[in-house]
Amino acid sequence: MGGMRGAIIHAAGDVRFEERQDPTIQEPTDAVIRTVAACVCGSDLWRYRGIAEVKKPTPIGHEYVGIVEAVGAEVTTVKVGDFVVGGFTYSDNTCACCRRGAHANCLNGGGYDGCQAEKIRIPQADGTLLATPGQPDEDLVPHLLALSDVMCTGWHAAVSGGVGRGTTVAVVGDGAVGLSAVLASVQLGAERVIAMSRHADRQKIAKEFGATDIVAERGEDGVKKIREMTDGIGADVVLECVGTEDARVQAVEAVRPGGMVGVVGVPHGGVDVEQMFWKNKGIHGGVAPVRAYLEQLLQLVWERRIQPGKVFDLELPLSEVAEAYKAMDERRATKVLLRP
Amino acid sequence: MGGMRGAIIHAAGDVRFEERQDPTIQEPTDAVIRTVAACVCGSDLWRYRGIAEVKKPTPIGHEYVGIVEAVGAEVTTVKVGDFVVGGFTYSDNTCACCRRGAHANCLNGGGYDGCQAEKIRIPQADGTLLATPGQPDEDLVPHLLALSDVMCTGWHAAVSGGVGRGTTVAVVGDGAVGLSAVLASVQLGAERVIAMSRHADRQKIAKEFGATDIVAERGEDGVKKIREMTDGIGADVVLECVGTEDARVQAVEAVRPGGMVGVVGVPHGGVDVEQMFWKNKGIHGGVAPVRAYLEQLLQLVWERRIQPGKVFDLELPLSEVAEAYKAMDERRATKVLLRP
Repeated sequence: MGGMRGAIIHAAGDVRFEERQDPTIQEPTDAVIRTVAACVCGSDLWRYRGIAEVKKPTPIGHEYVGIVEAVGAEVTTVKVGDFVVGGFTYSDNTCACCRRGAHANCLNGGGYDGCQAEKIRIPQADGTLLATPGQPDEDLVPHLLALSDVMCTGWHAAVSGGVGRGTTVAVVGDGAVGLSAVLASVQLGAERVIAMSRHADRQKIAKEFGATDIVAERGEDGVKKIREMTDGIGADVVLECVGTEDARVQAVEAVRPGGMVGVVGVPHGGVDVEQMFWKNKGIHGGVAPVRAYLEQLLQLVWERRIQPGKVFDLELPLSEVAEAYKAMDERRATKVLLRP
Repeated sequence: MGGMRGAIIHAAGDVRFEERQDPTIQEPTDAVIRTVAACVCGSDLWRYRGIAEVKKPTPIGHEYVGIVEAVGAEVTTVKVGDFVVGGFTYSDNTCACCRRGAHANCLNGGGYDGCQAEKIRIPQADGTLLATPGQPDEDLVPHLLALSDVMCTGWHAAVSGGVGRGTTVAVVGDGAVGLSAVLASVQLGAERVIAMSRHADRQKIAKEFGATDIVAERGEDGVKKIREMTDGIGADVVLECVGTEDARVQAVEAVRPGGMVGVVGVPHGGVDVEQMFWKNKGIHGGVAPVRAYLEQLLQLVWERRIQPGKVFDLELPLSEVAEAYKAMDERRATKVLLRP
């Protein structure tokens, strides 16, 4: 068996690029891909920062695009040589949940780790991967990579919040997911998209993605500003793209009576649903069902109608993955793209 | 000043039909109506049963249809002699919230009590009342009365849950609101509507309203049954029309991953939103914005396409209002219609 190299997290603050065994086909529904690009997710930082525990050295990463190297006997929709995008969870795309678009909760699905590596084993290849119509031009690679998680997660926030034609949206969080949620809201027909951001570089991307307004204030001041901009009542939909209690409180406060919070940040702390009830405010969201959105978004990227890869503001060789984590931890980078 | 009679709640279990002063125009936006029919709401029973406190003798009731007797100088959309339906909250129908359909949270709105009476003062008459196209035939009166609260509340549950063409819906609660939610779901295009009910008489109304299935089991057994009927995953949308913790838990458990709970029963107790997040389950709803739905539903009643008044299974003279409360408290009646 050959070897390859990939990122292993050993402890908080300790990510190493190390030799690992080559992945192989283990189930007839598997594929193995050679990575063309991978990246670091905000959620990878939970372990890097010691918020989530690292019990033992663990391969890390869950976003990728690549070229199919091998497929199991039952795989029919992708073949060796295809350029593929896949979601950060795997799914069979046929179960009762997938048939209703809830691929993140696929009855035969799950999550994986270890995708910041030269090669990756993909379970349920048919239900997880989508091949591009041909080999992509080099400039499309970051945009395709963004579909693996961050763009579909922003899209899910907007879909869960019910963003549509004419909606006024406020986005809490100016990380890569928040910026993607801005892009998603614009694509879904929102009339007004208010990005909450204090950082000039991220405000710039938000504007490029179509944000109509920027609010630099946070917390209560931010809520006050949003209300001032919306006839005193709040936005129709607020997208919570952070996952802290402060952000959630801010989102619930900034949405108008009758409105919806679309949530893709894990809701830590309790939500006062009785208070929300009296204000007719709702909340919906969760882990994004990437495969549900992949065909539509891949087409938008392929036709160069959206450029979600703009969220990558640093590119490094995969071998420098440790520096990628450091740069994101220290907020020197929003999101780092890695090339083997 | 003349006198009239109406229901006064003095304490838990103690509703009396007593002399009250005639209501008069106090604001130029008021109307006074002569009641044609009123009814008792499940929420009136909170005080009757001692769940909510009665601090002093209070006029009670918030559902009505009637004939306009007087209007303030600024009222333009209804006139003396009109037959009108109004919601259980008043609203101006022009504020920022109302313009977005959130009439229950009208910036100039509020609730009222004392509608189980011969005459009623209606604040914000233009934004609260809707006149019928002419004097209604006698058989339409119960169906028009149902629009004052119960039918619009069931409709709001279905709208909040996102019921549409092809949806599989389960309704928790077979009271008048739950039955109305069945009717609403059918009207909104649901493919399958599962009514959860143990009572033969209510099952019958649910079927007449278009329920495709009845589940008599409750609690965990009820959830198990719903899952068995929905490919093992739960209904797309569950409508919570009770307002107890048990009902809410049952609703959240019975909805599929990615699905929505539409809620019109006050959500007592906490909701584990983090658990809901991992299952991609959402919740939305609250007090119904009656005026937002009134034109559409009035038309459906007027054209005899829906008969929401079937939820009334007992009719009494208004003077016997005490017996109406007793009958509902003892579950001898689902909902009682009262005539002055």
